[in-house]
Amino acid sequence: MTTVIEHVLSRLHDIGIADIFGVPGDYSFPVNDAICNDPNIRWVGCSNELNAAYAADGYARIKGVGAVCTTYGVGELSAINGIAGSYAEQLPVFHLVGTPNMATQSGRKLVHHTLGDGEYDLFRRMSDPVVAASVVMTPENAARETERLIFEALYHRRPVYMAFPADLALLPVLGRAEPIAMPASNPDALKIVADTIVAALERAESACLLAGIHVARAGRKAELEALLDSSGLPFATMFMGKSVIDEQHPGYIGMYSGNLLGEEVRVLVEGADCVLNVGSLMTDINTGAFTAKLDPAKVIHIGHHATQIGGRTYANVEIGDLLAELARRLPKREWTTIKPGSLGPLTGSGSDAIDANALYPRWANFIAPGDILIAETGTASMGLGFALMPKGATFHSQTLWGSIGWATPAAFGAAVAAPDRRMVLVTGDGSHQLTVQEIGQFPRLGLKPIIFVLNNDGYLIERLLCKDPAIAYNDIAPWHYADLPHAFGCDDWQTMRVTTCGELDAALEAAERAETGVYIEVVTDAYVASPLSLKLHHAMQALYKA
Amino acid sequence: MTTVIEHVLSRLHDIGIADIFGVPGDYSFPVNDAICNDPNIRWVGCSNELNAAYAADGYARIKGVGAVCTTYGVGELSAINGIAGSYAEQLPVFHLVGTPNMATQSGRKLVHHTLGDGEYDLFRRMSDPVVAASVVMTPENAARETERLIFEALYHRRPVYMAFPADLALLPVLGRAEPIAMPASNPDALKIVADTIVAALERAESACLLAGIHVARAGRKAELEALLDSSGLPFATMFMGKSVIDEQHPGYIGMYSGNLLGEEVRVLVEGADCVLNVGSLMTDINTGAFTAKLDPAKVIHIGHHATQIGGRTYANVEIGDLLAELARRLPKREWTTIKPGSLGPLTGSGSDAIDANALYPRWANFIAPGDILIAETGTASMGLGFALMPKGATFHSQTLWGSIGWATPAAFGAAVAAPDRRMVLVTGDGSHQLTVQEIGQFPRLGLKPIIFVLNNDGYLIERLLCKDPAIAYNDIAPWHYADLPHAFGCDDWQTMRVTTCGELDAALEAAERAETGVYIEVVTDAYVASPLSLKLHHAMQALYKA
Repeated sequence: MTTVIEHVLSRLHDIGIADIFGVPGDYSFPVNDAICNDPNIRWVGCSNELNAAYAADGYARIKGVGAVCTTYGVGELSAINGIAGSYAEQLPVFHLVGTPNMATQSGRKLVHHTLGDGEYDLFRRMSDPVVAASVVMTPENAARETERLIFEALYHRRPVYMAFPADLALLPVLGRAEPIAMPASNPDALKIVADTIVAALERAESACLLAGIHVARAGRKAELEALLDSSGLPFATMFMGKSVIDEQHPGYIGMYSGNLLGEEVRVLVEGADCVLNVGSLMTDINTGAFTAKLDPAKVIHIGHHATQIGGRTYANVEIGDLLAELARRLPKREWTTIKPGSLGPLTGSGSDAIDANALYPRWANFIAPGDILIAETGTASMGLGFALMPKGATFHSQTLWGSIGWATPAAFGAAVAAPDRRMVLVTGDGSHQLTVQEIGQFPRLGLKPIIFVLNNDGYLIERLLCKDPAIAYNDIAPWHYADLPHAFGCDDWQTMRVTTCGELDAALEAAERAETGVYIEVVTDAYVASPLSLKLHHAMQALYKA
Repeated sequence: MTTVIEHVLSRLHDIGIADIFGVPGDYSFPVNDAICNDPNIRWVGCSNELNAAYAADGYARIKGVGAVCTTYGVGELSAINGIAGSYAEQLPVFHLVGTPNMATQSGRKLVHHTLGDGEYDLFRRMSDPVVAASVVMTPENAARETERLIFEALYHRRPVYMAFPADLALLPVLGRAEPIAMPASNPDALKIVADTIVAALERAESACLLAGIHVARAGRKAELEALLDSSGLPFATMFMGKSVIDEQHPGYIGMYSGNLLGEEVRVLVEGADCVLNVGSLMTDINTGAFTAKLDPAKVIHIGHHATQIGGRTYANVEIGDLLAELARRLPKREWTTIKPGSLGPLTGSGSDAIDANALYPRWANFIAPGDILIAETGTASMGLGFALMPKGATFHSQTLWGSIGWATPAAFGAAVAAPDRRMVLVTGDGSHQLTVQEIGQFPRLGLKPIIFVLNNDGYLIERLLCKDPAIAYNDIAPWHYADLPHAFGCDDWQTMRVTTCGELDAALEAAERAETGVYIEVVTDAYVASPLSLKLHHAMQALYKA
């Protein structure tokens, strides 16, 4: 006999979920119990539900799928901003919610975790705008609805919501269902699109590819790499897609951020006769506050399931099929290209204060091949966005949703997903304060991250974007950051607080050698800002009035 | 010229809001700026939005109204569980949300903090089930919609949602509107109800009143006290209404919790010929896991705006009017009554471990006249629920919504609302972990709480309610709690960690004398549970199957 929840867990494991993040609760005990008792899945307790959702998001960025488990009402609503982030950033996260049993629900009982009005379907409905699909799991529907939800999550790369009434979760599944196959490309549409692209590139004297985040989301990095290899096309990335293709690839030319930074890249991209945009979104941050000026007649947009050429959309063209087809057909050419830059040389030493020119190049230097770098929204990620990543190193940020606080728990989730890669988290003090307690989870699982907290005494990105930088709301509680890890039970971690270039150099060296978790508080003046964040400050009109 | 946001702030100040909790964000800068620049309102920055919402909830419990300000999408969704809690617990909290300007919205721009789909009304709609009303504020509607939302918030004692597009917030308000008067009681209905109650009590040989939370929410404590004084009626409270009337009032007989605890009280309440329930909810926790057996024929339910007698509802009977009328008309009688109990005598000393009999009576003893006691959901609040509060001391818990993590930020909010009262927070370790960072906010405002953290190595209330108490999900990260305040910048606080009765006694004495904030980690065995929580464990069938 397989129960409803056992069946769902077994299918989630089939698609790659080996860890489920969450906070337990009485209505979700049957779900919590089943996870703990499943030999293939690990329960990963988090400090709160938003952190658990962020952790599942980070996990999904590495493994392609993630899952979070919360309890009815209080738990699921605490997680909802994290789920919304996964929706915006196109990550298939399964949200498992334990709900009161059917007798309580149909009796409209006044029980805890309700609004006291006898309504039991409100919270599922509140989640609707931020999930691809939702369902209340029953013995009758579990087999087929599980397949439907897996399909929806993977086809759209969006979260889905599964409610488990406490009694129904433990009943046997009735019936069976086969996995739903992903739709294949329409061969005619695929051929037209491929023909058109091949012809456009044949005509073009110059061309460029934009490697976007959807390539990673669709799991098609290998296909895109093959295309780049065979065609010799130069490629840039926009912020959200950074490192989606290895930045040491010979075709890489650097970050394209409109006219804000990277003038050489801008000239090549905007001047190209043909631009293949493979999965980049034209968002405010990606386009350098809408300063990217791409001629629509020259850009072909290749999306996950459709391609747009000259205002026409070709549906049922799967990105993987199209990339593979192009890799086969495009001839190798010597396209005009440039070498990618990185950050400037290391400046400052000894007792010099840490300014942006001292800080960001040092961080860039510190990143090693294979690292996972999680960069929090704000001046820090903007500084690191223009660092050239070494081979195999990947950069992750929450560029579209931009919910500060995401990075710390997301780093935990990503570390759970890839315990053998080095995890480097770079966060700002203001952002860190939202979700700081999740650092206490790393040692429970034997994980040893390297965490940098930029202490610049407040919300710097907001000081740069608001009317009066010194206004009270940009100030935050003055914590002693370097004392936090030990209080949170990271007993053997090395913790450091650095205020000068010399101290920073020593700390970086110590971190390099460390065999424990490392936590470094980097103290700068309140207005030490990365170049991109300063450019955003100057482009404020464009950013908000576009 | 008064702008939209200035107008709203001025009206919120009129109704008692002097502090607005929040986290700033770029779309809400116009709102944030206006709050900081308003001479009558203080911006109170919080570490994250859920904490800010909880703080506003705590503030509203003391002042009758509260407000929280967040930014579009990421901020408002992070706060939504706190807003839902205020809805369930009937607290009028104003949620001010800054949103992108109208050009961005109508242009369906792809900007940060959106789902990337050009939709701009999703998050307001997600909030709908947990607010009494919501509106997008414009120059044209600001005057009258502000009055409508104030009315809805105060009439229903529920949160309301106000969105401020960044550009519209700064435009001048057009037109004017008068405050909407609260409906008066229907004199005929009021008379029938009062006559019926007077007659029922005249006939009754024994009677009892249940003083419920809605009396506090409706702001009618004085009217109820006058009724109790003039009638001599004995009164009990259920959990959610604890201390709504001073527990030193001569009519107080104790806590009514069905058959779980307090047998003498149960016998008196359930045996009474007439029970006046003034604003108690018959929820699972209030009714002792549905073990309360009140004969519907003998109970009269007096609600905020309506009274129910014998299955009939009399609408438009305002609680304040009815209580005042009854206070005038009910004759003083010598009703059968009992004296309220409290917790047992202090046991244990010296190196004895801290068990429940040692702990809860000591905490009860520690509470002083006038204290605000914030008790977190879980075994700790259940233990303190049966402690007799000294004169003027009030007990606050989130009994219906029961979202763990609420207490720490709610204590901060309540302390902001009443800086001259002593704030005592009692929380469990598991709950504290969700929202711990908010302790760093107290010293920024010169507040000196006394915080007890019960470290029993996990979620004890869940160990008592789940199948296998030792299952992994009930474990939490092993923090060094007593080290946290200093790391969070509470530099001058006294922090202590106690593991024996002798240490606990010394710590309580030190806390009594302290002129700074105090933080005491109380370490017990994992299964040291308060009596009510143990009773709940035994009543599990009733709790979940009712």
